[in-house]
Amino acid sequence: MANENLVMGFDLGGTKMLAAVMSEDDRILGRSKQRTMSQEEPEEIYARIVATIRGALADAGKEAGDILGIGIGSPGPLDLDKGKILDTPNLNLRQFPLKARLEEEFGFKVLLDNDVNVGTYGEYRFGAGKGFRHVVGIFPGTGIGGGLVLDGKLFHGATGAAGEVGHMIVQMGGPLCGCGQYGCLEAVASKTSMAKDMVMLASNGLAPTVLGDGGTDMKRITSKTFRKAIKANEQPVIRLVDRAAEMLGVGMANCVNLLSPEIIVLGGGLIEKLGRSYLQVAEASMRRHAMPFLVEKVKVKAAVLGDDAVILGGAALLRESLGLGGTP
Amino acid sequence: MANENLVMGFDLGGTKMLAAVMSEDDRILGRSKQRTMSQEEPEEIYARIVATIRGALADAGKEAGDILGIGIGSPGPLDLDKGKILDTPNLNLRQFPLKARLEEEFGFKVLLDNDVNVGTYGEYRFGAGKGFRHVVGIFPGTGIGGGLVLDGKLFHGATGAAGEVGHMIVQMGGPLCGCGQYGCLEAVASKTSMAKDMVMLASNGLAPTVLGDGGTDMKRITSKTFRKAIKANEQPVIRLVDRAAEMLGVGMANCVNLLSPEIIVLGGGLIEKLGRSYLQVAEASMRRHAMPFLVEKVKVKAAVLGDDAVILGGAALLRESLGLGGTP
Repeated sequence: MANENLVMGFDLGGTKMLAAVMSEDDRILGRSKQRTMSQEEPEEIYARIVATIRGALADAGKEAGDILGIGIGSPGPLDLDKGKILDTPNLNLRQFPLKARLEEEFGFKVLLDNDVNVGTYGEYRFGAGKGFRHVVGIFPGTGIGGGLVLDGKLFHGATGAAGEVGHMIVQMGGPLCGCGQYGCLEAVASKTSMAKDMVMLASNGLAPTVLGDGGTDMKRITSKTFRKAIKANEQPVIRLVDRAAEMLGVGMANCVNLLSPEIIVLGGGLIEKLGRSYLQVAEASMRRHAMPFLVEKVKVKAAVLGDDAVILGGAALLRESLGLGGTP
Repeated sequence: MANENLVMGFDLGGTKMLAAVMSEDDRILGRSKQRTMSQEEPEEIYARIVATIRGALADAGKEAGDILGIGIGSPGPLDLDKGKILDTPNLNLRQFPLKARLEEEFGFKVLLDNDVNVGTYGEYRFGAGKGFRHVVGIFPGTGIGGGLVLDGKLFHGATGAAGEVGHMIVQMGGPLCGCGQYGCLEAVASKTSMAKDMVMLASNGLAPTVLGDGGTDMKRITSKTFRKAIKANEQPVIRLVDRAAEMLGVGMANCVNLLSPEIIVLGGGLIEKLGRSYLQVAEASMRRHAMPFLVEKVKVKAAVLGDDAVILGGAALLRESLGLGGTP
């Protein structure tokens, strides 16, 4: 049955994992989802990955032998050539040879790439970035991930880890970042940076909605809390979120000046939860801070594929690595 | 004689213009140089360009008919497809169809690209970046230009003008830049930004060497003045230059995080005049400010081709555009 040219996509996230079987014309024939218990033992995490792949195969009524391969998006850093997860704070896998293990397990080809890269590629091929050749994907969330499609190809750079927009320094001498530097884009525009400031406001009595929703534990502050506080018209929170969107626009402007893309696709939970007005503040800031000649025709769009970006992108990358399908 | 596969390279600068005839094995067979009178009438500037080309042909003992084409590095912004100079503060040429004019004049093919791009390409093919596939060129001077070689190819982006490292914002809320923004890399690390601060020190009696050399007119402060003041051990000047090198390193770190290059080549007058210690401060700052995984193996080198970078790069780009020679 392998002449159906079926492939799989896989999204290995810190909170959930998704697998899908894809037809040659990019339809999802079957899928499966599990929670990731990210601090389990490596072999238990691996067993869940295998079970999720089997679940998607069963849902599609297929067997491993029907499948040409699987494209996996995983948090990094990764060794792309060897298909190894080197180390990731989001998952208890260190120096884990995921590609070798799965190839032995299933007998099909395995491609491993950074989750943000794969998600950006999904949006480029099937989503908000479709039809463009130069696409920058930016995903503000706990951190701020980035993926680059340059001249129609996913760009990796020398280490395979290009696209770290979140640790670009935009405010030398600015606030501390989770990485230990000061003034990174993540330190001024990520959900984490906003949550940190919100709990300070909450502990000072300036954000009652935040205090009621999450207390002063920054780990309990979700994008939903942001939205509630904004709806309740809590001005210090509104100003803080606006400022973060403004700074996100500075990061976007830096990408425009350096890479001259046609479109910036913004994705992730923060964009979904904070919606249009957040996006507009970020876009307006980008237009003010980038060089006019470079930014004039740049489009800004919200990602449209949601949870499916990585599975669709992974399947497409795998297919292209086999010389099938490929860039439109 | 066109079976010798001769090409030309041309460097159209704000102060001088250079042309060279190149053999198939990349030797310079003849060259010519003129001062650019940048504020002359467009037709006079054009006549000087033509004369410089003729001068190089004569020096090599060749005629226009012996030449396949010419690759020109010019200040921008440019329309690369049409080979037009759109507008540049350094040269009194606006909407000038240089490619069309020269093709009519000489009958050979003309390729026009941004001078910093072409210089970076020269260093990549023949100079400090030889043997690498991912090269970022940064040229701090009056402004701070950048050029990108990604996956072995000169990268242009959607507008043709990618690589504007100088207007990346590295210090939100920082000093004013010549472009009107605040906190661009140029505003904290260019020769202009340093000259501006030096004349302030000079007018305050804190930099006697600067005052003696250039007075308080920032246009009269050259890289030589910098070197003199440093030699005279004028501490405020030394600190100012160190801080600029430190900030240059932040810009380099941002390029590393976004593009994961193998090497950063630093060129231009400031690098030549301030030498090894300036480069070392910048490199150390880059290593502190970039992500460890990405910066670990990145090399930093001073450009080695000097004035020849653009003529060599232009000739190579022209040759490759004809499907001859090409990336090693």
